[in-house]
Amino acid sequence: MINYNFYNPTRLVFGENTIEKIGELIAQRGYRKILMIAGGGSIKKNGVYDAVVQSLTKNQVAWVECWGVQANPCLTKVREAIAIAKEEKVEAILAVGGGSVIDTTKATAAGVFAADIWKVFEREEKIINALPIFTVLTLSATASEMNCSAVITNEDEEKKYGTGHPLLYPAVSVIEPSAQNSLPWEQTVNGALDAMAHIMEFYFMGTIEETVLGVDEALLKSIIKAISRLKLKQDDSIARANLAWAITMGLNGISGAGLKGGDWACHDMSHSISSMYHSIAHGAALGVLFPAWMEYVCETNQHQFDRFAKGIFDCIDIEEGVIKFRNLIKSWQGCTTLSQLGVKEEDIPALAKMTVARGPIGRLQTLDEKDVENILRLAY
Amino acid sequence: MINYNFYNPTRLVFGENTIEKIGELIAQRGYRKILMIAGGGSIKKNGVYDAVVQSLTKNQVAWVECWGVQANPCLTKVREAIAIAKEEKVEAILAVGGGSVIDTTKATAAGVFAADIWKVFEREEKIINALPIFTVLTLSATASEMNCSAVITNEDEEKKYGTGHPLLYPAVSVIEPSAQNSLPWEQTVNGALDAMAHIMEFYFMGTIEETVLGVDEALLKSIIKAISRLKLKQDDSIARANLAWAITMGLNGISGAGLKGGDWACHDMSHSISSMYHSIAHGAALGVLFPAWMEYVCETNQHQFDRFAKGIFDCIDIEEGVIKFRNLIKSWQGCTTLSQLGVKEEDIPALAKMTVARGPIGRLQTLDEKDVENILRLAY
Repeated sequence: MINYNFYNPTRLVFGENTIEKIGELIAQRGYRKILMIAGGGSIKKNGVYDAVVQSLTKNQVAWVECWGVQANPCLTKVREAIAIAKEEKVEAILAVGGGSVIDTTKATAAGVFAADIWKVFEREEKIINALPIFTVLTLSATASEMNCSAVITNEDEEKKYGTGHPLLYPAVSVIEPSAQNSLPWEQTVNGALDAMAHIMEFYFMGTIEETVLGVDEALLKSIIKAISRLKLKQDDSIARANLAWAITMGLNGISGAGLKGGDWACHDMSHSISSMYHSIAHGAALGVLFPAWMEYVCETNQHQFDRFAKGIFDCIDIEEGVIKFRNLIKSWQGCTTLSQLGVKEEDIPALAKMTVARGPIGRLQTLDEKDVENILRLAY
Repeated sequence: MINYNFYNPTRLVFGENTIEKIGELIAQRGYRKILMIAGGGSIKKNGVYDAVVQSLTKNQVAWVECWGVQANPCLTKVREAIAIAKEEKVEAILAVGGGSVIDTTKATAAGVFAADIWKVFEREEKIINALPIFTVLTLSATASEMNCSAVITNEDEEKKYGTGHPLLYPAVSVIEPSAQNSLPWEQTVNGALDAMAHIMEFYFMGTIEETVLGVDEALLKSIIKAISRLKLKQDDSIARANLAWAITMGLNGISGAGLKGGDWACHDMSHSISSMYHSIAHGAALGVLFPAWMEYVCETNQHQFDRFAKGIFDCIDIEEGVIKFRNLIKSWQGCTTLSQLGVKEEDIPALAKMTVARGPIGRLQTLDEKDVENILRLAY
């Protein structure tokens, strides 16, 4: 356990019939005009949009809308939203969606005050201010609803970079788990895989940090159990709630306290894949990459990998653990190889090169271009 | 899992050599004069006071001091501290101590703006404002360093009441686990028992909230493991750190999310005991009361009690679990009966009466005066 700061001022409003409170939560903080950012329109089908609009209207909060955020959210959309926010002089921004919508909202909130928001992601400019952020979560995956990070893809330059700043913590996030009942099954699974990856990025940096590691194991097991229940009944409200809370805790500071900031090599590889292949979901790529990464680096911290195998999959070592992990993903109808995901074998060298464009990746074991290529081939 | 709000804005600065940062943490928030509240003087022996004073001086933060807070902190001391805070026009308050010192600090911070701070505890007056609160923790037990509650004893009226308000979240809490190396052994144990009780007050309200219950089990097991390590080596820095973090999470919102606000019957009984017997530590009383309460109420939520027995003590049912729990406390050299604590048998009826003075207690099973008397006799 190393020194760390824990700070997370986001207010979470969790449970049934909470979306209808969003207008009041915004109005009671004094904001009268907001920008609502959303995705492709699924919220118009499942009732979430209607509930939000009704609540805003009831609480006399005016709003303008920016639609069309896609998975692996793009800089172009951020620039569009910034222009609207400035033009309409909104006082706050409301994300209604999953991690992509929330990340777009964060980039927009800071972008209103930035000379060039992409320069922030390039680490050439600092965040100096941000509009207050509210979220109504419709897909549990990134935990962006309760952290201060955002990842945006610059589609012209094929770069997917992240940034973080305390000003990007949402002021309030509303999580109504049953709003996720109508998700396509693979989105539920990809969200779970994304969250498991967050937890594991921290977990494998551990040695004998019993407290945090025990909590992480509880979260991983809870996610696995919830997905198994949802496989049988997608509107199982208990499983939806447990899954949502475990996923949020996967990257809100709790899962990584004292764990050296995490490793993040798999995330870096996944970002390359989804910036080259826009249609490959981040979580799906992580589900393929993580077992391969485990095989490649496990000797660096053997004790911890064996602890994982025993604690999560009740088996004796990580070799067996990796097999069980892949079988679990298969049982969820997820992909376990890059070829299943649609990655072309001939793109692997370019993906490896892109992944280390800003230098070697990973912290448990530093990985250079050759290592990354090896892992991608293992995952292929 | 029921609806809940999670909100905890306290910034935690955790790890080695963090106490020396307190002056900077206060100064960077713009406060130039503070009131330092402390206990009986142990911080002058273990170097904590010197580190704090050096840091305040270095960062040009002026301070006045209020000493002498005792276990089960008293209203008289709160009134004394309020008078100093007003007289000296301090801008913030710094607690250097354990839960008693922090609770005194919270009551003082709010008391500066209250007509009569005891009326707040009597629920006859509301908290309208509070001075900013900083803490340097020297005893992990109450988690007061990361929550918004305070418990104060009115010694004249023999009442021990709690209050809570978002303004009472510390702005910053510094936890340097090794500062606890020199604690008397029973204080380390009582702190652990207090934290286990916090977690269990929530846990036994659970049914199938896998996520929170799994986290709670991880925290309980981590506390048990850390105490077992510390029994062999009281300056085991890894165990101190794991213990401190688990205890803070025991009552910072994480352990109780979605668990109906907890039961708190054992806490109510413990408060009566320590308001009648000032020398009995809160944690020690809880260690005696909880197993007796479990025996008395376990049929109300049998499944959950058996889950506890299996998950924490690896045994088949709660009957065996209670035996193992008492044996564990004995192995820590703690008390397992009220008579060992020094409670007189003839005081039991008065204690029962005092406990239900504001009505029946408990939420898993509502307990009236007769029930409380039965539990106290079981614990005797």
